[in-house]
Amino acid sequence: MTALKNDRFLRALLKQPVDVTPVWMMRQAGRYLPEYRASRAQAGDFMSLCMNPEFACEVTMQPLDRYPQLDAAILFSDILTIPDAMGQGLYFETGEGPRFKKVVSTLADIEALPIPDPHKDLGYVMDAVSTIRRELNGRVPLIGFSGSPWTLATYMVEGGSSKDFRKTKAMLYDNPQAMHLLLDKLAQSVTSYLNGQIMAGAQAVQIFDTWGGNLSAAAYQEFSLAYMKKIVSGLIRENDGRKVPVILFTKNGGLWLESIAEAGADALGLDWTCDIGNARARVGDKVALQGNMDPTVLYAKPEAIRTEVGRILASYGKGSGHVFNLGHGITPEVDPEHAGAFLRAVHELSAQYHE
Amino acid sequence: MTALKNDRFLRALLKQPVDVTPVWMMRQAGRYLPEYRASRAQAGDFMSLCMNPEFACEVTMQPLDRYPQLDAAILFSDILTIPDAMGQGLYFETGEGPRFKKVVSTLADIEALPIPDPHKDLGYVMDAVSTIRRELNGRVPLIGFSGSPWTLATYMVEGGSSKDFRKTKAMLYDNPQAMHLLLDKLAQSVTSYLNGQIMAGAQAVQIFDTWGGNLSAAAYQEFSLAYMKKIVSGLIRENDGRKVPVILFTKNGGLWLESIAEAGADALGLDWTCDIGNARARVGDKVALQGNMDPTVLYAKPEAIRTEVGRILASYGKGSGHVFNLGHGITPEVDPEHAGAFLRAVHELSAQYHE
Repeated sequence: MTALKNDRFLRALLKQPVDVTPVWMMRQAGRYLPEYRASRAQAGDFMSLCMNPEFACEVTMQPLDRYPQLDAAILFSDILTIPDAMGQGLYFETGEGPRFKKVVSTLADIEALPIPDPHKDLGYVMDAVSTIRRELNGRVPLIGFSGSPWTLATYMVEGGSSKDFRKTKAMLYDNPQAMHLLLDKLAQSVTSYLNGQIMAGAQAVQIFDTWGGNLSAAAYQEFSLAYMKKIVSGLIRENDGRKVPVILFTKNGGLWLESIAEAGADALGLDWTCDIGNARARVGDKVALQGNMDPTVLYAKPEAIRTEVGRILASYGKGSGHVFNLGHGITPEVDPEHAGAFLRAVHELSAQYHE
Repeated sequence: MTALKNDRFLRALLKQPVDVTPVWMMRQAGRYLPEYRASRAQAGDFMSLCMNPEFACEVTMQPLDRYPQLDAAILFSDILTIPDAMGQGLYFETGEGPRFKKVVSTLADIEALPIPDPHKDLGYVMDAVSTIRRELNGRVPLIGFSGSPWTLATYMVEGGSSKDFRKTKAMLYDNPQAMHLLLDKLAQSVTSYLNGQIMAGAQAVQIFDTWGGNLSAAAYQEFSLAYMKKIVSGLIRENDGRKVPVILFTKNGGLWLESIAEAGADALGLDWTCDIGNARARVGDKVALQGNMDPTVLYAKPEAIRTEVGRILASYGKGSGHVFNLGHGITPEVDPEHAGAFLRAVHELSAQYHE
């Protein structure tokens, strides 16, 4: 493989010295970019983009071509590829978000679920990873990802997005054994899926626990964190002579950082409700931190964006161990110029913290 | 006024000894009750219920008549009465939530906003409070309430509900002076509104900061908590020879409990993501705590509800200072029998912690 020209992102995740704080944006290949909207229109729809390695590669590269400041690429895909490969029938209804043709309701439904083979059942993702990795040609590292077991379970049990996770929580409280079996199957599936991505070329992986933060403190430990820990312990952590860092991101998980930091990952993603300096003090040297600007700050003017970037950098303070990011995905209505102002501000304002 | 027959709720808020942990449910007068749905159909719509003191009293009493375990009544009203009284034109679109005819966008819009007079402009709320208080006849205490300035501001700037508070946050970051003026006017309005409710008979008041938990840690302090603190310092804290406790509830505010506990209120509301025992250790003797069962536990079977109530009581531990509640309002789809099982479990299982 080609040598990596920019390894700031990987170094910061391992708390090794860097010149400036590395930065990327969750959902950086997305609808706020006109070039993305054009590719998507050409591909037909969102899943056609994901399932075609050439298209997935094209949109993954778009933000890198526009913003030279980006220190990482992230595989263009969906968090729901695993349930789809389990036979649940993922589809997207315009304006409605993801839906599944089948819904998981009973223990029998769960027992019948297969564990997908990443190469046989999710080959399009493995192909996208190797295609992107080749196209990157060492420019920046490539991040692979998956949804967390709990997050995937909510979509499978609800049949799509949900406001209050009514059915999933009823199963959790009424039938915890069934829920544990589902989560265990998902943890096995995520482990081999992420290992497949790593072997195909992903140089770091992130687990998105989008909905774990909606659980009670006790239920989070038992039904979300325990399964992420299991995944982390089963991941390939070194490839091609280099460490493959693992990032855990539980949105709204700020209350539980101490326990998440014990899960064995290299870094934790933070949403914007945490003060990052306070988070650093709480997790100590155990993990690096990724985040955490409120993505809606990008609706404000570039000067205001720059001020907020400066505030977050000052809060983190001196030294490595910080990957700058938004606290959640960039939203479709953001002006791409504002995203550029954000990325430039991170590099320009962070040098002083790495002298 | 008639002597209070059941003062557990008020005593627990002041950390005075009680026989069992008092309990009420946010949105206890609501759509999950068939008798509520009947009253609402008769009144015509939601705002007609709120604006007619007889109807507001009728629906406030309904859960008390059904559940003898309830230790408090809460005024039936909406959090958006203040912006409506400021001339913003509140209305409800079926299935769409609250909307405003006018939207606050500029400094000029904010400068033009009046501070409503509770008696002249919100007389229907004052009348509802005194009517309910009379009807309660000392059965349980009556809670008055208001939305927090930040929460009210989000609806006024967005023109209704929002997913990401795009316009409100753009104003906050681009034009903080304008946002501060809006919040200051709202804090003045909330103070006199709550004082009006107290003089009309409310025996405790709660400030609902539904959306403060969506702010960054720094913005929360400056744009939400500071204004709640201002309100608390202006409230009438004793009436009719009895303390009038104040409860602050920031949903998703669990990260910031230490600073919220310094705001001068008697109690903090907790959502279910906090472990209540951990929260108690963090706030010490400063405040009582209210909460915090995940409302979706009510979708589970009565045995599971009872287990979860027991877990929360054990986590809080021995002694007064806990008002049991859900971590958010009860949802329309809950079976009223399950709500009953919840309320009974709180009284039955909590006696051992007050011996």
